[in-house]
Order: sequence, then C-alpha cells, then structure tokens
Amino acid sequence: MDCARLKRCSLTYLPLKVLIASYLEPEHIDHIRKSVPQVEVIYRPDLIGAPLFQAHHTAVIERSAEQEAEWRALLSQADILFDFDHTHREDLPQLAHNLKWIQTTSAGIGQFVKSYGYDRQGWIFTTASGVHARPLAEFCLMAMLTFVKNFRLMEAQKRARHWQRFNNTELRGMTVGILGLGKIGRDLAAVCRFFGMRIIGTRRDVRRAVDDVDRLFAPSQLDKMLPQVDFLALCLPHTPETDGLLNAERIAMMKPGAYLINIARGALVDQAALTDALIDGRLGGAALDVTDPEPLPADDPLWDLPNVIISHHSASTADTENGKLTELFIRNLRRYLADEPMENLLNVELMY
Amino acid sequence: MDCARLKRCSLTYLPLKVLIASYLEPEHIDHIRKSVPQVEVIYRPDLIGAPLFQAHHTAVIERSAEQEAEWRALLSQADILFDFDHTHREDLPQLAHNLKWIQTTSAGIGQFVKSYGYDRQGWIFTTASGVHARPLAEFCLMAMLTFVKNFRLMEAQKRARHWQRFNNTELRGMTVGILGLGKIGRDLAAVCRFFGMRIIGTRRDVRRAVDDVDRLFAPSQLDKMLPQVDFLALCLPHTPETDGLLNAERIAMMKPGAYLINIARGALVDQAALTDALIDGRLGGAALDVTDPEPLPADDPLWDLPNVIISHHSASTADTENGKLTELFIRNLRRYLADEPMENLLNVELMY
Repeated sequence: MDCARLKRCSLTYLPLKVLIASYLEPEHIDHIRKSVPQVEVIYRPDLIGAPLFQAHHTAVIERSAEQEAEWRALLSQADILFDFDHTHREDLPQLAHNLKWIQTTSAGIGQFVKSYGYDRQGWIFTTASGVHARPLAEFCLMAMLTFVKNFRLMEAQKRARHWQRFNNTELRGMTVGILGLGKIGRDLAAVCRFFGMRIIGTRRDVRRAVDDVDRLFAPSQLDKMLPQVDFLALCLPHTPETDGLLNAERIAMMKPGAYLINIARGALVDQAALTDALIDGRLGGAALDVTDPEPLPADDPLWDLPNVIISHHSASTADTENGKLTELFIRNLRRYLADEPMENLLNVELMY
Repeated sequence: MDCARLKRCSLTYLPLKVLIASYLEPEHIDHIRKSVPQVEVIYRPDLIGAPLFQAHHTAVIERSAEQEAEWRALLSQADILFDFDHTHREDLPQLAHNLKWIQTTSAGIGQFVKSYGYDRQGWIFTTASGVHARPLAEFCLMAMLTFVKNFRLMEAQKRARHWQRFNNTELRGMTVGILGLGKIGRDLAAVCRFFGMRIIGTRRDVRRAVDDVDRLFAPSQLDKMLPQVDFLALCLPHTPETDGLLNAERIAMMKPGAYLINIARGALVDQAALTDALIDGRLGGAALDVTDPEPLPADDPLWDLPNVIISHHSASTADTENGKLTELFIRNLRRYLADEPMENLLNVELMY
C-alpha cells in the first residue's frame, strides 16, 4: 500500500471502495479485480438493474426496502462509482458522501452533470469518450452509403417485386461537414478520408490542423460552411452554446438534397424545421440516432418519412462496449492511484 | 502519323475508326477526341440506345430501316468498338469485318464472349476491370453495416413508431472470406482491413501473398475456409469452374448466422439452396447484386425475405463510371497505337 492517493483519501488505510452502479459482465469485474487489486470492487448485480441488451447502462430496478437499505449503505461507503446511479439521480450527493470520482459510461454527460448539480460537489468525472467512436463512425458510414447507394429505391423495388436497374454514386469526391472534431468527429474524418471524401469541419482553434480534415472553420463561420456540404454530421457535445445550433435558418442554408446525420443530441437541432425540410425534399434525408425528446413520441411525423433513418439512440451501443469501458476504467484506476493525469477528464466549465 | 500500328492496320493510312456503341456523355467523347486525335471517333447518339440511367450500357434502340442501314455501314468500317453492340450480338462478326478490338464497359465478359463465339474472331477484348471496384466495395460495406447495425430492426421499430434501444456490433474482429482476389476482391480487402476485420480469401497461387489478406486458401481448400467466415463475398468471374460453386453442401458448411454477399454472377450460387438457408435462418442474410436469372422473376421467394438485400445488378452502376471508363479507354487507345501492352486484356482461355 504505497499509494499516496490512498493515504490522502482514507484515514484508516482501508482500500478505496469502487461501487459498480450499472451492469457489467462478471468477467469484466474479475478483470478489474485482478488488474487493480489495491481497490475493493463492490459488485452486487442483485441490487442494480438487469440490462435489456448488452451494454445497457440505464436499466432501473425495483428494490425491496431491505435491498434499498443495503444499496444506500454501499453508496455511503463508495469512494469511486463506475457509472452514475440512475436510481438516485437527485439525492446522490447526500447519499454518496465519500464519493470522489465517477467513471461514466457515456461521452456526453455535461448537461446531465449540470442539471443535477453534480458539478458543485468537487467530484472528478471521467467520460467514456472514444469508446463509442468507431461504432458511431460506422453508423454514419452506413447512413451515407444507404443514401448514395439508393437503398430506399432497392427496397421499394423489392416490395414491388420489380427488377429494374438504376444509377447510384460513390462517396469519392463528396463533401462531409463535421461539426465537432473530438474523438468521434476525428474518427469519422478518418473513415471519410479512406473513401476519398472532402472533409471540412468546425473547431474552436482553427490554427491547429486536424488529421484528415481539409479545411477548418471557426464556429462563427458555420454559415459559410453549411452550403458546401453533401453530408452534415453533428458530433458536438450538448452545451448552452450548441443548443438549437441547427435552427431553421441554418437548415435553409444547406445544399439542396444534402443529408443530416445526428449522433450528438437531439436538442442541437430545430426538429420541426428539420421535419419540414425533409417533407418538402429540400434535404435529401436524415439519419437520427438522437431526437428531442427521447423516446420520440409515437405521433411524431419523423416516423413516417421514408428518407429518415432512426436508430433509437443505439448507434453507439455495440457488444464490444463493456470490454472497452472496462479497459478504460482499469487505466483510469491505475492513474488515479498513482496520482497521474486521468483519461477523458470532464471539464465541468466547458461541459465536455 | 508515326504510328506503327496505324500502318499495319490500314493500307491507305486512313486513321483508325472508333465506333462508340453505347451511350457516353458528349463531354467524354470530346475528351477522347482531344486526347487521341490520331483516331476518328464516330459518335452517333441517334443510332444507339438512350440510357435509362447514367452509365447504362445495355440500352436497346428501335432503328428505322434507314438508320439501321447507316449503323451497319458504320459497323463495317469500325476498327475499334467502345462496348459491345447489343443490337447485333449474333451477327457482329459478319457485320464488323474490320474489327480488331472491343473495349467493354463490364468486367465480367468471359461467358458473354464465349457464348457468341467472339473468342474465335481474333479480336482483342479489354474489360472494365477496376472501374467498378470501389462502388462494389462500398456496396459490400453498406450490406455488412446494415447487417451488423441491425438496420432491419431499426426499420421495423420505425414502422411500429416504437422507440426501443437495442444492441448491435462493430466490424472489428469479424471475419470476411473473399472468393476471388482480383481488383474488386482486393479493394474489398482493403476496405475490410481499414475496419479491423480479419480477411481470408481464395487464390490459385497461395504462395504469393496478397495485400490486406491474412490467410490465403487454394480453391481446393474452400470447404476448410467456409466455416470460418462471418461474411462470404463472391468476387469471382463466372467460368465453368465457378458455375454452381456455392452449392447446397457448401452453404451448409457456412457458420450459422453468416452473411452472403454476391457481386459476381448469380450462376455461382445454388439459389434454391440459398433461399432455403435464408428462410430457415441458418444464414443471417444475403446481399445479392446478381441473381439467376436476371431479371429475378416476380414470383421468386427471395423478394419476400426480410434478411435479403437485392440491388438489381446496379451496385456497380455509379455516376462516376463513364468518366472512369473514358480515362481507361484513352489509356488503352494510346497503348494500342503505340503497340504497348493494354490494360485489362481478356484472356479468352481463362475467360477473365
């Protein structure tokens, strides 16, 4: 027990307690325990929600009074949480009075942290940034390919049992505009580069070049960028600055027939204006992993539009996710214990 | 006129006559004329079929008696054809008695050449091999992504207006088996490599390594390879050797839930056995650019299967195609005139 952090955190030299607050497979728990034996990993699958699908991290559970008491006792001892406790969003600061750090399972947590006042607790937050990058880039590419390959037409002809040759195109030479060049945006840029696309994007600091991006625009130059893109991909965090960013006016600036891909948050887009532009054909289509609100209400007109792909906030939900999250958590646990800079530290001011 | 070939071919030193036998955009004709001014390019859009879509090369035309006489006169003078003449498949050898070379607009022409006895005319054939490689690789990738991202489920939930999160996966670590590592197969391998897949494939000469391919199997080892693949991509030419290659027995050897992608020719597959395997769920799905026969008859059971993508032999039909074909033709015209080895020469024995 030669760890500086350990001494600082615990007067009695007890090992730090890590409470797993959303489902992880037992093999991943074992892996954490073996990799970082200095901490005590508390894993009680009976007290946390069962996942509806692999890598489901927002399952909610009904606990008996006894179970609830047990869970609260565990919360009160926890130094570190793996994931938010979605059964105690409001009162987490009261219940988890030893808490120092939350390793989350999502990348976009700024608004959530702010809305529950977690940013005023002095806690450390590390996000899952990067874990979902490739699955999300693959989803974007799937959407782009179904659009340029005329997949809807294939399907319509299939339903009509009618064999008819048709024309499509390839991605080479098309322009993608990526709003937000974080880990996800940069991975998408690498994918688009491979297919010979032109890549433009927005970045606060336009003087620093970004790999695979042909031209950078400052956020203030967004309106200049929009008319150039065949595909607009939203990869920005949801902050007060990005809320409603793609408003009706900006949607109208887009090239006729352009496609929108939103893997960020629904609140970035004026959804009514988007729906109008899709209905009247000004936009060629949209692939929406996220909507506002979620779930999308059953009577929303988006459901009916043939040129819209809706992926139910699941584009990032790959069966490889928990393995990657576990590796990230292990790396961060070691860095935390060694007082080294942690990966994916949330800046609570910038909210990402 | 310092060209050796020209002297050999024409006693009167007239320029070689190039007859354009399927539609090309006027700008491409201009480009050929400017790039290779030594030849006479005969372009009569009024005598060839109008394309139903860009890069449509099998349009057929009804000619008046006068027009037909004009066309026959042009055929009789032609030294070089750009594309087959689909209005005179049977009697081309009689009508085009000056013909020396056909630059085709398709890559897979071996069976066609053989079936009309063109291989016995002493003609040179150059194929469009390579022109369609990237569009076809993109189609394969679109199919793979729609399968692994659970696109059918997204669509079913969309029709039901039901928002429900679900799990999917990413391509990394999955195995693709590529039958036929020509230009198309190798480009597909490069795409799959980018996404971190394991790539295995068949090749006559297994001792020569192929870029991006982790393991090569001889054609005789196909049965050993089949159980290993998550995706099987058919990129082989149609020859007597490959006819019916994927028979019922071999389909049964495939991994349960594996996917078939056929961008080669329908006759490579026992389509009835494939249909059975798709209906009873032994295979996860199929993406068929080609079927047997084409057009697929309206009463074929494949139309009804939700896990089947049918792309109407149009996966290679990109609006970029004629530009690429024109560049290839110009390169080959120059090589022909200079007596240099031409690109994509068909080996009429091997049929590819």
